[in-house]
Amino acid sequence: MDLSQDIIIAGRLADAAGAVIRPAFRKEVAPERKADSSPVTETDRAAEAAMRAILESERSTDGIVGEEYGTRNESAGRQWVLDPIDGTVSFIAGRPIFGTLIALMQDGWPVLGVIDQPISGERWVGQIGGGTTFNGKPVSTAPCRALDQAKLATSSPHYFDAEQADAYMKVAGAVGRNERQGMIVYGGDCYNYGLLASGHIDIVCEAGLQIYDYAALVPVVEGAGGTMSDWQGNPLDAGSAGDKGADVLALGDPARLDDVLEAMG
Amino acid sequence: MDLSQDIIIAGRLADAAGAVIRPAFRKEVAPERKADSSPVTETDRAAEAAMRAILESERSTDGIVGEEYGTRNESAGRQWVLDPIDGTVSFIAGRPIFGTLIALMQDGWPVLGVIDQPISGERWVGQIGGGTTFNGKPVSTAPCRALDQAKLATSSPHYFDAEQADAYMKVAGAVGRNERQGMIVYGGDCYNYGLLASGHIDIVCEAGLQIYDYAALVPVVEGAGGTMSDWQGNPLDAGSAGDKGADVLALGDPARLDDVLEAMG
Repeated sequence: MDLSQDIIIAGRLADAAGAVIRPAFRKEVAPERKADSSPVTETDRAAEAAMRAILESERSTDGIVGEEYGTRNESAGRQWVLDPIDGTVSFIAGRPIFGTLIALMQDGWPVLGVIDQPISGERWVGQIGGGTTFNGKPVSTAPCRALDQAKLATSSPHYFDAEQADAYMKVAGAVGRNERQGMIVYGGDCYNYGLLASGHIDIVCEAGLQIYDYAALVPVVEGAGGTMSDWQGNPLDAGSAGDKGADVLALGDPARLDDVLEAMG
Repeated sequence: MDLSQDIIIAGRLADAAGAVIRPAFRKEVAPERKADSSPVTETDRAAEAAMRAILESERSTDGIVGEEYGTRNESAGRQWVLDPIDGTVSFIAGRPIFGTLIALMQDGWPVLGVIDQPISGERWVGQIGGGTTFNGKPVSTAPCRALDQAKLATSSPHYFDAEQADAYMKVAGAVGRNERQGMIVYGGDCYNYGLLASGHIDIVCEAGLQIYDYAALVPVVEGAGGTMSDWQGNPLDAGSAGDKGADVLALGDPARLDDVLEAMG
């Protein structure tokens, strides 16, 4: 599959979103609440609109699934999945560890993904079978010889229900000598998956992600040599989110997948 | 108290630490474990050594309290308190939201503080009674009219024991419509206190901080118009850490202190 033209378009989408986001960063924001009560800002909407305008002009037969403005051309085989600001709360709090997510899905499978951090100017681009780059240079995940040496990341403990929290805490316990001292970082949303692709984080474990939260992450992580799955080890596709969202596990070293699944069980 | 010469020295300390930290960021790191099993790297040690060399040369009669190399001149009225990398796990994971902390304490009270993020080039400098600057420009905390509009930050849920977690969760519940959707950011260590001083975060709630973790934060937060205290509302001094570390509460708007203490109780 030749995605070279799509990679150029995806880069233009990220540029357009970043041009909207940068001037709004750390400025007065008035977050509103969506129907699910998650926060959203005018900047989220304006950044998605800027990306959709490019797609509607240059990829008019492709579908779009956007976090803020919904779907277009739902039946198209090619679907662009857009999250203008993944990590809206970090954006509102002035932390440069949110990101713009752009994915291209083919027949329900993510094949191309971009994670863009517009404040620090960091961009990961991944394609299934085609490698992952960070600011244009190839990157790869790191080997991880054992769980007790792993660096684990998750965005927030509040994203887990009681059962999920229990499974997560087993993984957290397995990565450190004790819970306080394990090498675990919190916060970060999509940014953690980029750092995993670059070899700085070994495991990301999250729950309740929507398609626009995870579609772009799969090609970035897998293009760099990692693996992404649900908490049973199944690959993630357009249907993984279900009603409650997808439970997502990203590993830099696929050889540790069985260990993590066993720790959770 | 004229701290102008001390502010210049503090800036040189931060420069020296940053010069050690920047080339090591996202490079191969081999974290070791300290006696309390918290992670430390060669970079932590080298950055503290670079700061101590300046103080030993130019402030030889002052005391030093450093996270990695301990104390010197313990009986001096003036004490420099150094944490070369606050947020070592974020540093190891390649996240630019750690910081170098430098405080000057006079007779046990922090009077001058620096939070320096050497990757993004962000520096907060605060003095009690003398204001706080961010990259040289004055900043101030934001008003917060009610807890349910507050942006709350904490580094990690693992830093709380069961009783502390219970009190923290009451604050978390008070800031959002529900726990998942409250505007709460995790991770960030000292960086969150800088963002609070700049008006982007309203509350930081943490437990178990050592003197080198919190001394620099007090002048930055209070110089910007906020307040820092323990979880009973008492001011923080050299004795606040006790055996278990200090429970720390930072508020951008001091008018919300009673509300937070009430929510916790």
